[in-house]
Formats: sequence, structure tokens, C-alpha cells
Amino acid sequence: MPKISEKGRLMPESPIRKLVPFADAAKKRGTKVYHLNIGQPDIPTPQVAMDAIHHYDEKVVAYSHSAGNLSYREKLAQYYDKCNIHVAPDNIIVTTGGSEAILFVLQSCLDPGDEIIIPDPSYANYLSFSISAGVKVVPVLSTIETGFALPSIEEFEKVITPKTKAIMVCNPNNPTGYLYSQHELERLRDIAVKNDLFIFADEVYREFCYDGNTFFSIMNLEGVEQHAILIDSVSKRYSACGFRVGCVVSKNKEVMSTIMKFAQARLSPPSFGQAAAEAALNTPSEYFDELIKEYTLRRDIVVESINKMEGAFCPNPKGAFYVVARLPIDDSDKFCKWILEDFEYEHSTVMFAPASGFYSTKGCGKDEVRISYVLKAEDMKRSMEILVVALKQYPGRTVK
Amino acid sequence: MPKISEKGRLMPESPIRKLVPFADAAKKRGTKVYHLNIGQPDIPTPQVAMDAIHHYDEKVVAYSHSAGNLSYREKLAQYYDKCNIHVAPDNIIVTTGGSEAILFVLQSCLDPGDEIIIPDPSYANYLSFSISAGVKVVPVLSTIETGFALPSIEEFEKVITPKTKAIMVCNPNNPTGYLYSQHELERLRDIAVKNDLFIFADEVYREFCYDGNTFFSIMNLEGVEQHAILIDSVSKRYSACGFRVGCVVSKNKEVMSTIMKFAQARLSPPSFGQAAAEAALNTPSEYFDELIKEYTLRRDIVVESINKMEGAFCPNPKGAFYVVARLPIDDSDKFCKWILEDFEYEHSTVMFAPASGFYSTKGCGKDEVRISYVLKAEDMKRSMEILVVALKQYPGRTVK
Repeated sequence: MPKISEKGRLMPESPIRKLVPFADAAKKRGTKVYHLNIGQPDIPTPQVAMDAIHHYDEKVVAYSHSAGNLSYREKLAQYYDKCNIHVAPDNIIVTTGGSEAILFVLQSCLDPGDEIIIPDPSYANYLSFSISAGVKVVPVLSTIETGFALPSIEEFEKVITPKTKAIMVCNPNNPTGYLYSQHELERLRDIAVKNDLFIFADEVYREFCYDGNTFFSIMNLEGVEQHAILIDSVSKRYSACGFRVGCVVSKNKEVMSTIMKFAQARLSPPSFGQAAAEAALNTPSEYFDELIKEYTLRRDIVVESINKMEGAFCPNPKGAFYVVARLPIDDSDKFCKWILEDFEYEHSTVMFAPASGFYSTKGCGKDEVRISYVLKAEDMKRSMEILVVALKQYPGRTVK
Repeated sequence: MPKISEKGRLMPESPIRKLVPFADAAKKRGTKVYHLNIGQPDIPTPQVAMDAIHHYDEKVVAYSHSAGNLSYREKLAQYYDKCNIHVAPDNIIVTTGGSEAILFVLQSCLDPGDEIIIPDPSYANYLSFSISAGVKVVPVLSTIETGFALPSIEEFEKVITPKTKAIMVCNPNNPTGYLYSQHELERLRDIAVKNDLFIFADEVYREFCYDGNTFFSIMNLEGVEQHAILIDSVSKRYSACGFRVGCVVSKNKEVMSTIMKFAQARLSPPSFGQAAAEAALNTPSEYFDELIKEYTLRRDIVVESINKMEGAFCPNPKGAFYVVARLPIDDSDKFCKWILEDFEYEHSTVMFAPASGFYSTKGCGKDEVRISYVLKAEDMKRSMEILVVALKQYPGRTVK
């Protein structure tokens, strides 16, 4: 029987999905499971986008342009303009979700064996796509004590080798919620210029900034126009994960024409999703005002609740809809399984993502979990109450 | 300035798309261009599929299961059952078009440096995805004289090395339209068993068989249940290229669980496309009866017309909606550019795909073009009339 590839063996199982069978079993037993494990918001997709789908009137649902519909890219450029990111439709290639954007960028800029530096912890699929592209992820550790701020220049320079081709950040950050400041990004810029590296920034949580903080894009860093590549997606912005529409944005023409060759090979991004995403650009600004208010409320519930728990600690991040919290537990993989398999409180339990799955640095995140605050305030409160009880009963509790 | 990847440099430009600027320029001059260059059918997408989109009623357009919606996979299994392909929903992973299916299969089964044998000419993007996966394509030449029948066992065995991991076929074939017989596929089976190779079959044109010929799937070859991997897509079947929905089908559990890891990394296939594809399974059988009648008519026009042209030859293929025809020309790349740039007949011209772009074997296809018979009969007739005139005027004509 022919064997699968070595690459296939190396691909990690999703740190979130491997717990799904335990959640399913809990539900079968009649236990309600609060899903704080995934970045799937509960906010309705904007009505303007749904209307576009309900009135989709092409007779033949044909391939679109490989770079995405021009009408969509034109409106996207206007959207970016409002975000103070000044690009032309030609600087944009529409992709099948942010996922495809990540893969295209890695394949176009890095060869197998090349290295990419990513602050640890990071979005788990950066590692998957890197394996897919044969690229080596080199972590630089950020810590919960600093709220997961950008590591120092020295930490980056320690790990730069002749194989290093790029630095990648997610801003605001998944899984930590940390919002990088302009000053921090300028430090990144200096490293990139000095060492001739690309900077990839996944800015899909751009709209999700709290407490009056504002977002600064790598596209606005001076002196790295040719180094900066923006990865984007409509999934989080419009609660539209199923559209599978994202994009790559860059002023580096060589990179864009290379990405275009990968884009042509897969023919085109989804037509329905593009139509919906184009319409979603007309989402009224009140939608986002409500969103920010709602997510701030949810975040506050999580952060305040956890910081009241003995032996637990949660930073107060300014962006995205995640926190990484430290809990008084021996092993988050065990705990996240235990809370689904061996625990319930008044017929309910909670699903978290073990933070270990977001670290490339061995042994890190063992007492941390990622919490997505994607459920309504009432459910977030209830989830925290369940967590309090669970921590008291968990056999691997480290604080007596 | 950081450099793009070597892989990016190697990626070919689409053989079709590179002519697009010349077609655009012709249109700007007021010339009507008949597009026989791409596999984009003009047949309307089935109404049942459009109805599903118009009534899509999820409030949050969420990620689907990474393997695709279970309800869709269950109905797909029933569809395959009717096609005499007996598989369970667990044997199916839904992908973002056939394109993603090809990439997943290559990455899961082959490592960089491994070799895949593909009959030449072949679908141009097999080469692109192979470069993307770092895999080497080894062609075995099929020829226009045999109508592009499967090369002999000896031709395959000549190129098998310790690095060979798989053979890939497209059946019915793009670009040749050739329909492989059960007997030919059994020869492939024997080679695969003897040399322990995977067999990948792209069967997206399954429904497009003419003159009463029937389709035989690699899934029905005895003794290669663990070797056979089917690549499929709804694009051609339902004239739904923009859905971006395909799938991988295999009974090899190790391969499927490996593909699942790649599928999880990109989260999920498009939600709207899946809803439409699921509904499309209810397309009435009359739709396909009409389709076959219509495409047979179009094919007959092309084949008969070309065989009447002096110095030209066109096989009479039994499947898909393409032919590869030999024309009395010095260089199909030059001819296909010339006919757009320097020629018109009564304010019209035709766009073909130079066959050279479908061959991995150097120097082949120079006097051949691929013709997609995706326009209505009247337009196909007109296109052939234009071709007659063009061939008379073309300066690189080889028959005097």
C-alpha cells in the first residue's frame, strides 16, 4: 500500500478540533456545552450582505477574475482608504479566506527550508501553513506577564539567521488579544530593514479595538513599502466566516505578480462569497459601534471573573475577541479534556482551547487556556461561573 | 528589498490567461471575440441551486465542518451510488473546488522531490499545483494520431523511478476530450499495483460522455481500493464554476485523515457554495439529457469543420467539452496571439488556447490548439468559419 507523505505526517492536528469528540460526547449525555474554544462569533452577518445573496441574479455562476472581481477590489480600496490604508485595486488580490492568503504569501516569498519568525503564542494554523510550504517557524516568546507585548529587538535578533526571510504578526493578536502599538511596529520595521526581511501582518481583527485604542497598520510604516504584506479576511469583521473571502494587499509588484500565478492556478475565489463581501462593505457604522460595545462587555466579564479566581491571571487585552488566561492547573490539555469528559455543573460545561496548541516553544502554555468571548454576555457570565466550580473540583489543581 | 521565492519564479503563467490582454485589446477595437479558450460553460446553473441561495436562511454564515457539511456529504454519497460508485460520507472531504482537492492530494501523498506520472498533454494546473507542492511531473506522451489514448504500459514503465509515487489521469480528459476505457484503466491498475503507486483520477467531466459511451471510474477498479483517490468538482457538472466546491473521495483511511489535517488548517469550504451544491444534487435528469444533446451537437460542428480544413485534423473525442486539434500552423502560441491581435473577419475573431501550454514534453503541441466547445451551436459554427478564413491569411501557415 502506498505511503502518505512525510509532510502529511508532520501536519499537526488542530489543537481545537481534537477535543471535538469529547464535546460531542458531553452533548450526547445531555450536557450543555458553552463553546469558548473557537473564533466563530455569534453576531448576525450584516443584512446588506444577506440581501445581496438573496438577490444574486447571474444566470451562470462563473469563475471570477483570479484576483477577484474588479468591482469588489475597487470598493475594498475605498474601504482601506477609510481605514487610512491607501492602496489601489491593483494592490489587492482576493483570496479564499485569510487562510489562502497566508498560504499564497508563504509560497510566494519563502522557499522550503527558509525561516519565518513569529511571536509565540500565535495562530495555530500559521504553523500548519508553514509545514505545508516547507517553511520553518522560529518562535520568539511573548509572555503573559507583559500581556503578550512584542518581544524586544534583541530577542528577534538572537534568532535571525541567513535563512530568515520574514517576520509575521497578527494584530490585534489571535490568541492573546494584544494590540501592537505604532511604536512596537516601528521596532519591527527597523529589524526588517536592517535584515532585509518581509513583514507579514494578519490584520483581520482591525475593527476589534477597545477602550478607545486605535489600530495602526503595517501598511503605514514608513520605509517598508516593499517589505509589507497585509493579510486580511471578512470572516471576523462581518461575522462571515463561511463566505471564505479574504485578500492579500501589498505595494510590492513582484510579490503581487507572483501571488497572482498561485491565484491563477486555483482559478478564482468563491463568487457568492465575493458578492456578499462586496455588499457587506455597505454595513452601517452602527453595526460596528454595537459590536465594540458588546465585545467590550464580554471581555470585561471574562477578565474580571478570571482575575477574581485564586491562582488565576488574565491580562486585559485591547483587541480581537480572545484572551489567554493563566489558570491554577497542571496541564491545560488535560484540563480542557477533563472539563468536557468528567465534569459538569448543573448540566453544563465549557469548552476552551488549551494554549499549548498556540505555542511553538516546547513546554509553554501548559497552565494557560485561550478563551474566545464569542457568546453573549449572559452566557459568558455563566461560563465563568462554571469555570469557578470546575477549578475547585479539578484533580490537577495546583493551588491548594 | 527581499526577494520572492524560487518556487514563485518557477510557477508558470496560465497558458490561457497570458493571451487575455490581446483579447481585451481586440474588444476595445470593437472586435467580437468568441471565447473557445476556457472551460467556462455558457449553460445556466440549475434553478434548484439558485433557489437554495435565494432562500439561504442562516443568520450567521459560519464555518462549516472542515470536511464539509455532513448533510451534503450524505447526499453526495447517494449521488455517487447512482453513478455506481459506492462510498460512504466518511470517504468524502469537501474542498474549495477541484483545485484545492488536487493540492490536498498532492501534499498528502507526495513529498518535495517525489515524482508523479501524468499523460501528456494534461490540465495545465496539474503542473502548477505540482510546483506548489514541490513535486516533479513526469510526462508520458499520448498522441493526436491515437486520439490521445492512454500510452502503453511500456511507456509508463520506462519513466518509473524509485521516486515515483503516483499516476494521475483526467477522465474524461481535459484538454483532449478522450474517454479512457475500462480496459485502459485496468492497465493503469496493473502498473499501480506492481509498482505500489497511488492512482489519482480527476473525474469532473463524468457526466459529459457522448455517442452512448459510458464512464468507468477508478473507484471501481478491483484490487486498488487503497491506491485510488478520486478528485471531483461541481464546476462543470452544474455549470457552477463560481461555487468553488469540489471534493476528494477515497477509501484509504490514512490518506483521508491526512487530507483532513490540511482541510482543518484552512478551516472550511465555502458555505454558500455548499448549500447551492447540495441543492444542485436535485437537478432533474432532463437537464443532463439536454446537456449531452447540446454538447454533442457542438462537438460535431467543431470536429466536422476542422476535418474539412486543408492540413488540419481533429480526433472525435467521446467526453468532456474540449478537443485538441492539429492546424496547419508553425506555432500555436504565435497563431493564437495573431488571430487576436492582427486578424478579424467581419468584425469578429476567436480565442483558442495554444496546446503547447498543456504539454510538459518540450516542443510538443506547437501545431495544436485546444478548443472548448462551450458556446452555443450557432456561435461554434461562426467560430469555425472565422478559423477557416484566419488559416488562409495566417503568415505562418505551413500548408501552401
